[in-house]
Amino acid sequence: MCSSEFVLDSVLEQDSIYIGRFELCQLRIINKDAWLWFLLVPVRNNVTEILELSVTDRYYLMDEINAASKLLDFFGSCDKINIGALGNIVKQLHVHVIARKEGDAGWPGPVWGVDAGNPYQPQALQDIVDRIKVCISQDPSIHLEINQDSDQ
Amino acid sequence: MCSSEFVLDSVLEQDSIYIGRFELCQLRIINKDAWLWFLLVPVRNNVTEILELSVTDRYYLMDEINAASKLLDFFGSCDKINIGALGNIVKQLHVHVIARKEGDAGWPGPVWGVDAGNPYQPQALQDIVDRIKVCISQDPSIHLEINQDSDQ
Repeated sequence: MCSSEFVLDSVLEQDSIYIGRFELCQLRIINKDAWLWFLLVPVRNNVTEILELSVTDRYYLMDEINAASKLLDFFGSCDKINIGALGNIVKQLHVHVIARKEGDAGWPGPVWGVDAGNPYQPQALQDIVDRIKVCISQDPSIHLEINQDSDQ
Repeated sequence: MCSSEFVLDSVLEQDSIYIGRFELCQLRIINKDAWLWFLLVPVRNNVTEILELSVTDRYYLMDEINAASKLLDFFGSCDKINIGALGNIVKQLHVHVIARKEGDAGWPGPVWGVDAGNPYQPQALQDIVDRIKVCISQDPSIHLEINQDSDQ
């Protein structure tokens, strides 16, 4: 599939900001600063469930969940990583990878449905991207291409 | 690691019932009949995050998430499968794989923290196990060994 044909769900587009591209997924960040909250969106149209992916894509997805977890771990001071593929409201397959800290908004429950935080200020967002770049430069197993001018 | 040495978290043991064993994980069912809710517990001690698994185990975990999803799909009448690895309360790595229906308890939110349903009656539980056996017999890609006399 040519990735230029990929159509991102409008709610995911509105709620998150494009950071970069793994082999399978867009790496996006939920635009709420209460948590460091990544979104992995497989660049595949008409896929709702993990079991609809090819076996190759499923292994890419696991690799990219692992890579996103490593990025969160690199930021430090994270007590637990939460991973979830729900999709009850937005059907397009997407996987949440979220850094949780004891006492954060919603702790110890899940973050979905918790109203907290504000949109990132541009400098705060740039600081996150810069730290991701440092992490990638130190860990060659993270195959993330950062191109903030593109959203594909 | 010899699987006989595996120690299951006491809360997971209390909340769920052993169904069978994949290569990596125990397949368990949460003992609440409001949802069909599986739990995958990797038979590895002292693992909290997916990124602590070996790459081989991560791919097994993805295969087993896929297999558990296929089992739920086989039961039919499921609108969405929810997959989550949270662990904010119980640290031992465990992955939830849950059949969701529009209008079920908590819909369209997540199920965690929703108080609904009752423990399974023995016959209802046996019916589920029998259907899982039928599904396995029809899909040789699901490598689940059912042995209700063991919890290892």
